Amino acid sequence: MSTRIFRTADIGEMEQRFRANLINSLTGFKSVNLIGTADAEGQTNLAVFSQVVHLGANPPLVGIIFRPDTVARHTLANITETGYFTLNHICAEFYERAHQTSAKYPAHVSEFEACGLTPEFSEQHPAPYVRESQVKMGAKLAQRIDLEINGTILLIGELIEINVPEKYLGADGYLDIEGAGTVTSSALDGYHTTQLLSRLPYARP
Amino acid sequence: MSTRIFRTADIGEMEQRFRANLINSLTGFKSVNLIGTADAEGQTNLAVFSQVVHLGANPPLVGIIFRPDTVARHTLANITETGYFTLNHICAEFYERAHQTSAKYPAHVSEFEACGLTPEFSEQHPAPYVRESQVKMGAKLAQRIDLEINGTILLIGELIEINVPEKYLGADGYLDIEGAGTVTSSALDGYHTTQLLSRLPYARP
Repeated sequence: MSTRIFRTADIGEMEQRFRANLINSLTGFKSVNLIGTADAEGQTNLAVFSQVVHLGANPPLVGIIFRPDTVARHTLANITETGYFTLNHICAEFYERAHQTSAKYPAHVSEFEACGLTPEFSEQHPAPYVRESQVKMGAKLAQRIDLEINGTILLIGELIEINVPEKYLGADGYLDIEGAGTVTSSALDGYHTTQLLSRLPYARP
Repeated sequence: MSTRIFRTADIGEMEQRFRANLINSLTGFKSVNLIGTADAEGQTNLAVFSQVVHLGANPPLVGIIFRPDTVARHTLANITETGYFTLNHICAEFYERAHQTSAKYPAHVSEFEACGLTPEFSEQHPAPYVRESQVKMGAKLAQRIDLEINGTILLIGELIEINVPEKYLGADGYLDIEGAGTVTSSALDGYHTTQLLSRLPYARP
């Protein structure tokens, strides 16, 4: 099969949009979530994030990458202000509404209302969940690390509340997120459902 | 639908394997790659990683999360020693061989040979690519950040070589990784193919 090879000089010379699409494609399929927050006055905010990573199970830690030049500003400000956020899996039936939260709404507009999604609260913390989501987590800000190399920010949160559909939770703790309708994303704008190939046994030499 | 709610105390009391499966499920579908490295003597190593994130397009930076207690040890040692690594998308046709690289082989065994995958080299750097992979990148170590919160390590690499199938590269830079056969993973052992819902236009209020 015919291939294209790009090296450092080629990457530097790419047209900006072409480079953004290509480089964002290369990291593969992403974990895409809606992050729900509120400011100190209770004004809610909702934003789509595709850079969420598992950092550890005990304590349960997740990392989120923020780029300072994106619409993530309100989310970051709210987490800094209140110390809490929610992660909500995006399901196929509302992925278009989820994507719409990436539009640059003014600070006084809640993306919940603007995009047709429903805030839902717990007694554990002030951040809003997305009612339509099947898999949702509440997290407490644990640490912020500024990556000087390019100005991105790694926020680390500890999961303090987990809400999952009983039906898709296995006896071994494996959650069938495919069954729950969770989608994955590619590059900046591709959304995909999945089809399980298999779960593989723990590998031994 | 009936749901299960777990809070901090419940998470702390979970049986270890249950907690590992559940918490690893919660971050959603992951970018799963084979990381190829070599030591200073040219001994090759290959390991499957599901924690690869996009950090920026210009310069093209990726982040990888390493857990100190995993088989990642050889990979981390080799990157520290030589300064280079490759990322290779895992395709459906060889995902079982890719998963097998997570077995704990001794240091003198190359997972390429043990798992039936083929090393391929470029003149740009000493790290081996996986010939069977359709989408592959060579990266230079840029920074290592130790996350004191739980001992994980964030390695940041700059992409210096990109090799993609011409057929799946769009005029706008979007790479059709689904077409190229790239898989995604869930939790610790689930592998999935994907089905595009759609690419959505840039969202505006």
